Amino acid sequence: MSKGLTSRSEDYSQWYNELVTKADLAEHSSVRGCMVIKPYGYSIWEKMQAVLDQKFKDTGHSNAYFPLFIPKSFFSKEASHVDGFATECAVVTHYRLKNDGTGNIIVDEEAKLEEELIVRPTSETIIWNTYKGWIQSYRDLPILVNQWANVVRWEMRTRLFLRTTEFLWQEGHTAHATAEEAIAETEQMLHVYADFAENWMAMPVVRGKKTANERFAGALDTLCIEALMQDGKALQAGTSHFLGQNFAKAFDVKFASKEGKLEHVWATSWGVSTRLMGALIMAHSDDQGLVLPPKLAPIQVVIVPIYKGEEELQQISAEVEKITTALKLRGISFKYDDRDTQRPGFKFAEYELKGVPVRLAFGGRDLENNTIEIARRDTRTKETISRDDIAEKIAALLDEIQANIYQKALDFREEMTTEVNSYDEFKQVLAEKGGFISAHWDGTSETESKIKEETKATIRCIPLNNKQEEGLCMVTGKPSSQRVLFAMAY
Amino acid sequence: MSKGLTSRSEDYSQWYNELVTKADLAEHSSVRGCMVIKPYGYSIWEKMQAVLDQKFKDTGHSNAYFPLFIPKSFFSKEASHVDGFATECAVVTHYRLKNDGTGNIIVDEEAKLEEELIVRPTSETIIWNTYKGWIQSYRDLPILVNQWANVVRWEMRTRLFLRTTEFLWQEGHTAHATAEEAIAETEQMLHVYADFAENWMAMPVVRGKKTANERFAGALDTLCIEALMQDGKALQAGTSHFLGQNFAKAFDVKFASKEGKLEHVWATSWGVSTRLMGALIMAHSDDQGLVLPPKLAPIQVVIVPIYKGEEELQQISAEVEKITTALKLRGISFKYDDRDTQRPGFKFAEYELKGVPVRLAFGGRDLENNTIEIARRDTRTKETISRDDIAEKIAALLDEIQANIYQKALDFREEMTTEVNSYDEFKQVLAEKGGFISAHWDGTSETESKIKEETKATIRCIPLNNKQEEGLCMVTGKPSSQRVLFAMAY
Ligand SMILES: [Zn+2]
Ligand SMILES: [Zn+2]
Repeated sequence: MSKGLTSRSEDYSQWYNELVTKADLAEHSSVRGCMVIKPYGYSIWEKMQAVLDQKFKDTGHSNAYFPLFIPKSFFSKEASHVDGFATECAVVTHYRLKNDGTGNIIVDEEAKLEEELIVRPTSETIIWNTYKGWIQSYRDLPILVNQWANVVRWEMRTRLFLRTTEFLWQEGHTAHATAEEAIAETEQMLHVYADFAENWMAMPVVRGKKTANERFAGALDTLCIEALMQDGKALQAGTSHFLGQNFAKAFDVKFASKEGKLEHVWATSWGVSTRLMGALIMAHSDDQGLVLPPKLAPIQVVIVPIYKGEEELQQISAEVEKITTALKLRGISFKYDDRDTQRPGFKFAEYELKGVPVRLAFGGRDLENNTIEIARRDTRTKETISRDDIAEKIAALLDEIQANIYQKALDFREEMTTEVNSYDEFKQVLAEKGGFISAHWDGTSETESKIKEETKATIRCIPLNNKQEEGLCMVTGKPSSQRVLFAMAY
Repeated sequence: MSKGLTSRSEDYSQWYNELVTKADLAEHSSVRGCMVIKPYGYSIWEKMQAVLDQKFKDTGHSNAYFPLFIPKSFFSKEASHVDGFATECAVVTHYRLKNDGTGNIIVDEEAKLEEELIVRPTSETIIWNTYKGWIQSYRDLPILVNQWANVVRWEMRTRLFLRTTEFLWQEGHTAHATAEEAIAETEQMLHVYADFAENWMAMPVVRGKKTANERFAGALDTLCIEALMQDGKALQAGTSHFLGQNFAKAFDVKFASKEGKLEHVWATSWGVSTRLMGALIMAHSDDQGLVLPPKLAPIQVVIVPIYKGEEELQQISAEVEKITTALKLRGISFKYDDRDTQRPGFKFAEYELKGVPVRLAFGGRDLENNTIEIARRDTRTKETISRDDIAEKIAALLDEIQANIYQKALDFREEMTTEVNSYDEFKQVLAEKGGFISAHWDGTSETESKIKEETKATIRCIPLNNKQEEGLCMVTGKPSSQRVLFAMAY
């Protein structure tokens, strides 16, 4: 297994692209901007889905499914929403093909839709049009619904997982009787996302609020989690929006309160997508390939026999079966790779590339000595240990790896978060170091836009529970009460 | 809870439509032909998905994801395939909307696609175009991949779950080195579907082979499972196709065999969809509402307290907690409905409508007597029993209900399967009784088409392991070696 992976220092972007394809995670399809998620990549996404789905259910949500298509007119009902999505929509205009008589398949002009349909870029409009029929009284609230779905946003420049025309995601859409309850839901789901990012993906995140410039099209407030990648760029890993009564007003969704008054319903929406796959890859992986946190690794342990002859293989396999039986009991996933078509070295490289957290190598000498070689992917260290209580040792090691990967990413982020006090210093850190830059800003969209124009850096967020301190905007010198986090971003 | 459900004898079709909406399973959306699957309906679909997904994995398959869009040219590559799907395609022609300057949102004609994209009606073409890159040698085979996805087939007349423009499904797409292996896969997956239908859905099915007329567009052979609904119409519940080398030839997918020869790859595809929801509903439900098999019921047991005053409720709730703890240990799902906003009678009707298999009612007298009232949904019978070993009793009852629902459907199907020996008899049974009609047919597409034209009945399948018997085609009098199954069908 020749990896031939470009190193991160050589070309980070190239490293990422090669890793995604060589580790069998995803590939570009023949359809512009759309990806194929390959079985190994999809199995990681399935693990993510399972954990998130359980968290949504534990917080009282149910899944449902709404149409892929949205009538064009729905789109126009919420003004800032259509502004946000109109320029990147796939539009269905016809519903039939035909043979043109010479053997060519063409669009049948007689099958033109009266009203064009948009392939959903997000589902607020179709869902709020549906909720109108579900909500009459306060007794019908809250509605706590989530949808797992594909969405389409026409992107001109795409990158596997990070920015594709079609992607997979979940979108929660909730309806509430009061603003307070909707705001609490918005915050709760942000914390669900942060918990998932930190404790499953082993990826530290900053929880914060977006500035007006960076808000979701149609939201009053957008909360987000922001992670730092190894190249010093930030990645928005999840968002949770407080939509106020905007969509309820656009679709005329009212409820009779306990007091019998008709009021507009309050809304939230929140989502994470296959973009998390990109974040997971970039947060931890190294020049040898993927590094997966054990909690999301489809295969947690791989076992490779190293043998001379069929008889020794049989002896080894019998001992390995004792190990796998013990692993099964602990719910640890494993693969015993006894293929005779590949040599151990090839297998080692393959599982390293694919980020399997723990590798066991079982050789002839281990038979006599009651030992086994155990290697960890994160530190690339190995040792020979006794096979006594092997499953217990592996379980402990998986926990240690999970914690270590997180700590490493956290240390990196702390190292890469810089406070600056002048615009010059800001530009210098941005150019020479990257990472998060914590700086005072006067709170205006104008200044934010100017900084973005001049440096391409954006305000990633105003961290929640941000320390309040008096300061001066690094650009305008106007007073500021807190620092915000800037970064170059994916 | 006033159900006001039309009875099956009055208007079966109306009964179905009302049941689907009143039991909160699904509803029509504002998008022509597209449905909204509501949380309760979706939770049943999720249970179906979980069981099927595990069966696919147990038979060696992995999930992956392929693009929603298919370039028009891909479609044309397999001739019978394009014939089968061209007339019902949603076509994407543009990728941007714009404001026309007067505030109207219109399609931006400058954003016209060079090649139109089809929203997938099925994914053979895009997947085989992808497999071309995955397959070089026999070592790359077999490929055993499944996809859970939404698909679109433009339907003029739609019915919730049974026929909608957009629906959810899974589509397996496998690639093999030999015809034998592909045929074995086709058969294996048919049996997986039949096992699911019979042992989870409690719905007996006939396993069979489609005639050439009824085959999937592009297949050499289509196997299917056919179920009988309570109105005597058949429903095709799943199909498994042997595609031969058709798609490999259309997309030029070859592999080097062990002997070093370049050969075309053999293919299968197989799928079931949200149509199964329609089958599940129609197979078992009655004039009071849904009847769900316990193995697929989102709530298997509902517990309703019947009390006077807060104190008695507290006493009952304390006893109920002992029951629910025991149910949890056995993995039985339940809901304790102690809402004070609704009366017991309302709750009883609601859970009857929603098909909850077992209902417990716990009253004040049960406190003293160590008893509880237990009612089963399938037979609508109830009795008061001792609370000793209550979870064990419930577990046994759930098994009994599962078996009873299946047996009832099987008895019905046997009752409704008729052998006929003349075309007159055939027409009479079709008109007066319905159901499956077993008759001799001369094996020609002409005769099959004539029967369909004259009676609207189709050949549902040639049953697998069909009894061979000499006979004469009921229409042409030509010799026939076996009976085939006809029916009116959904
Ligand atoms: Zn943020
Ligand atoms: Zn059949």
